[in-house]
Amino acid sequence: MLELRKYVNVSDDVFVVKNLIGAILQGVGIAYLFPILLIWFYPDEISYVYYFVAPGVFSILLGAWLARHMGKIEDVNLRQAMIAAAFTWLLASLISVVPFMGIARMSFTDSWFESMSAWTGTGLTMMSHLESYPRIILFWRAWMQWLGGIGIVLVALTVLIRPGVAAARLYRAEARSERILPNMVNTAKVIFQIYLALTLVGIYLYYINGMSMFDAVVHTMTGLGTGGMSSHDLSIGYFHSTAIEAVTIFLMIMGAVNFTVHYRLFKEKRLKPFFQDVQVRYMFFFLLPVIALMAFNLTQVGDGVGTALRQAIFHSVSAITCTGFEIADLSKYPELSKFLLGILMVIGGGAGSTAGGIKLIRVTLMYESLKWTLQSAILPKGAVIKRKVGNYVFSEEDVQEVMSFTMTYFAFLLIGTVYTMIRLGTNLTDSFFEIASAQGNVGLSVGITSPALPLDMKVLLILHMWIGRLEIFSTLVFIISVFFLAPRMVRRR
Amino acid sequence: MLELRKYVNVSDDVFVVKNLIGAILQGVGIAYLFPILLIWFYPDEISYVYYFVAPGVFSILLGAWLARHMGKIEDVNLRQAMIAAAFTWLLASLISVVPFMGIARMSFTDSWFESMSAWTGTGLTMMSHLESYPRIILFWRAWMQWLGGIGIVLVALTVLIRPGVAAARLYRAEARSERILPNMVNTAKVIFQIYLALTLVGIYLYYINGMSMFDAVVHTMTGLGTGGMSSHDLSIGYFHSTAIEAVTIFLMIMGAVNFTVHYRLFKEKRLKPFFQDVQVRYMFFFLLPVIALMAFNLTQVGDGVGTALRQAIFHSVSAITCTGFEIADLSKYPELSKFLLGILMVIGGGAGSTAGGIKLIRVTLMYESLKWTLQSAILPKGAVIKRKVGNYVFSEEDVQEVMSFTMTYFAFLLIGTVYTMIRLGTNLTDSFFEIASAQGNVGLSVGITSPALPLDMKVLLILHMWIGRLEIFSTLVFIISVFFLAPRMVRRR
Ligand SMILES: [K+]
Ligand SMILES: [K+]
Repeated sequence: MLELRKYVNVSDDVFVVKNLIGAILQGVGIAYLFPILLIWFYPDEISYVYYFVAPGVFSILLGAWLARHMGKIEDVNLRQAMIAAAFTWLLASLISVVPFMGIARMSFTDSWFESMSAWTGTGLTMMSHLESYPRIILFWRAWMQWLGGIGIVLVALTVLIRPGVAAARLYRAEARSERILPNMVNTAKVIFQIYLALTLVGIYLYYINGMSMFDAVVHTMTGLGTGGMSSHDLSIGYFHSTAIEAVTIFLMIMGAVNFTVHYRLFKEKRLKPFFQDVQVRYMFFFLLPVIALMAFNLTQVGDGVGTALRQAIFHSVSAITCTGFEIADLSKYPELSKFLLGILMVIGGGAGSTAGGIKLIRVTLMYESLKWTLQSAILPKGAVIKRKVGNYVFSEEDVQEVMSFTMTYFAFLLIGTVYTMIRLGTNLTDSFFEIASAQGNVGLSVGITSPALPLDMKVLLILHMWIGRLEIFSTLVFIISVFFLAPRMVRRR
Repeated sequence: MLELRKYVNVSDDVFVVKNLIGAILQGVGIAYLFPILLIWFYPDEISYVYYFVAPGVFSILLGAWLARHMGKIEDVNLRQAMIAAAFTWLLASLISVVPFMGIARMSFTDSWFESMSAWTGTGLTMMSHLESYPRIILFWRAWMQWLGGIGIVLVALTVLIRPGVAAARLYRAEARSERILPNMVNTAKVIFQIYLALTLVGIYLYYINGMSMFDAVVHTMTGLGTGGMSSHDLSIGYFHSTAIEAVTIFLMIMGAVNFTVHYRLFKEKRLKPFFQDVQVRYMFFFLLPVIALMAFNLTQVGDGVGTALRQAIFHSVSAITCTGFEIADLSKYPELSKFLLGILMVIGGGAGSTAGGIKLIRVTLMYESLKWTLQSAILPKGAVIKRKVGNYVFSEEDVQEVMSFTMTYFAFLLIGTVYTMIRLGTNLTDSFFEIASAQGNVGLSVGITSPALPLDMKVLLILHMWIGRLEIFSTLVFIISVFFLAPRMVRRR
């Protein structure tokens, strides 16, 4: 790693990062002020307003001071963009602990866990008896999940794509030829309109199916953002309503679809782009066998066919979309069902969506590349093999990048799983499940996550949520930069 | 797959394959005659000779007739070589069932399982109360494992390397610059001498440490061939001897080292090439943390530190070298230890050795490629990244081929594990363990493998052993050729 230093201009990085911290602080500060609107409806919660106004105003002021030279930043390079993305989630989660510590009297670690889980759209929680908390704090969690959801879509479509590099093609496979959104501000505008429209649709659908307005808002925000934090301990299971489950499935899938597909849906006013999308097709391709197997497995342990199928469908969609809503106690599920859900959580939703995991396009590409490898072994040297998925032609470089990411993803899963087994003595399935849930930003739990966890396990899960949200490499680049490059700059002075 | 047909000259394939079948038949036929030598020492087993002479002579005669045009084959292309390799193990295992059916009165499936397990060097077994069987049949198993071991080394160094293709560099990383063995006949000669010398060393070491001559021969053949079939139900645990365990560890490691390293050891008469070898280094790199964790885990369930360490070392080496010898009942191991052994079985031994699994060089290359990916993300575009492992520079093509293989390996593990869980209701750890053991040609068992298994599970394990031995792609090419190409040829007539 020593060699790296000669290539990197550290003081330039520090300038960019300082201004970016300022911008993030301002953003989170503004976010802090929104939950105050709730007082209009729940005036008895006015005493909690302080825990939002104080950190909000402080963040905005500090941020404005730090970002005062923002205009001087001409360009951001790939390394800086990756560092900034990793830093955004880390810093946002740290700033957002105030209401948890102040109102819910949670420890710092539990509060950090909760806000990291919220901002990354994971949904694992340190809180129980949710109904006993003030609504403003439940709204705060859902609000972070909604913002975190649109945030990651923006990062995925602008920062993680690395213009000109292989990954770019993966993220906007279909959209690329149109170059619909040439820069970040435009992207943000269009994505935000789509996101807001879907949110209003979700609230309406929940409300007409019997939810209270508060629950409808909360569950739409956490469903569409595939965050999965509920205002009830029993999650969606609380409502005992097939209609509400159906609306939830709709919202979860919407949240896990590449947002450029939504853009085309809105523009073309027809459903074809949805069913034509490679990622959507493969989502169903992976869902169907798992639903069948899981339903069968659930009937083996005594569930009726109807219940088994209903739970299998709901939880499979919740897992592959990385939402984490539940309608039954997963800790009582048989091992096979847990493992199948774990696989779906590892696969994850669409690239360019709010979902986590490896992402459908990557899994699809690897599946297709097996065929190409076989063809090249069977055919004589002259034969040309078309590396196509959907309408898009992939290079060997794309394939390598995807596999490299996947192997790294597996390596982190493995480390976390083994650590959990050693530390807690839990079995393989449960340990893998909980780590896969954290790293895939899913939030389904077999009961390992609880306030009773030892400190190191909480930190481990926080790290997995953070690493998973930024697709690993961003966080690794961030960590390497902080530990290997920053010390040098300090010594230089 | 339909497009493939226009590139492939099927009748040419059939000609080559027919002659190859003949050659294989002759080889197995000759192999059949060797166990008869045992009658010299155990004259009371003369009645079993019939079950070796009859199939042996029949195979030789049929083979000679089928291979009568062998001289006309000028060249074998990659596809034909892969098909032939896959076919060799399939056919050899089918021909070798006679003594199991005739002497041991086992069913066809059990006999096929046993001979596939023997030829692939796996060591999972359908036989119990081993001491009650005639020695000639125990020798027959060990003999197949010894031959299967040298066979796969030859295939690895000549067929699987695909001269001129990326994989070639993986197999003979160090040896390549010397081009020590330009053709298969020379390779066979040198490898055979090394193998024989190591075998004699092993027999001597076992014998002076108290084994009977018969046991010494059997365990050397199955230890060096990393086959792991014993003449005792308790495997190496039967001998209750640290010295014998140490000799076994030595033999297992020798069998799992690239044979070009052995060649250099013999030629240079010093140990340096051994400790310089990248695969040897990484074997210890992976072994050390696993041994530490497993020993710790075993003390957690009540073992003394000495026993825990001894078992952890022996079983870890047995797993990573894909041998499968045991000194304790693994079905009683805690989940973490089973899982750790499972990981070592998936990693496997050195490429170009008798071991199975993904192979150390591949895992090493993937581990190193993560560093390269990070470097390329951090460094500006101009920076040059050296893709080196040991003394060898790898291309992106190498990396992609390795990852593609690994993903396919995982996919087959996953399918087998899920199938086992559904079919037998076993838990994730045990199911994964047994499938990883079969696919990695290891032979360690947590007790799932037994004659009581349903037919489909036996066939599943047979397939995993076969697929794993030929590094998957050979068998897939074989299967595709048989199911997609052969029917066309038939229609053509
Ligand atoms: K989630
Ligand atoms: K073995």
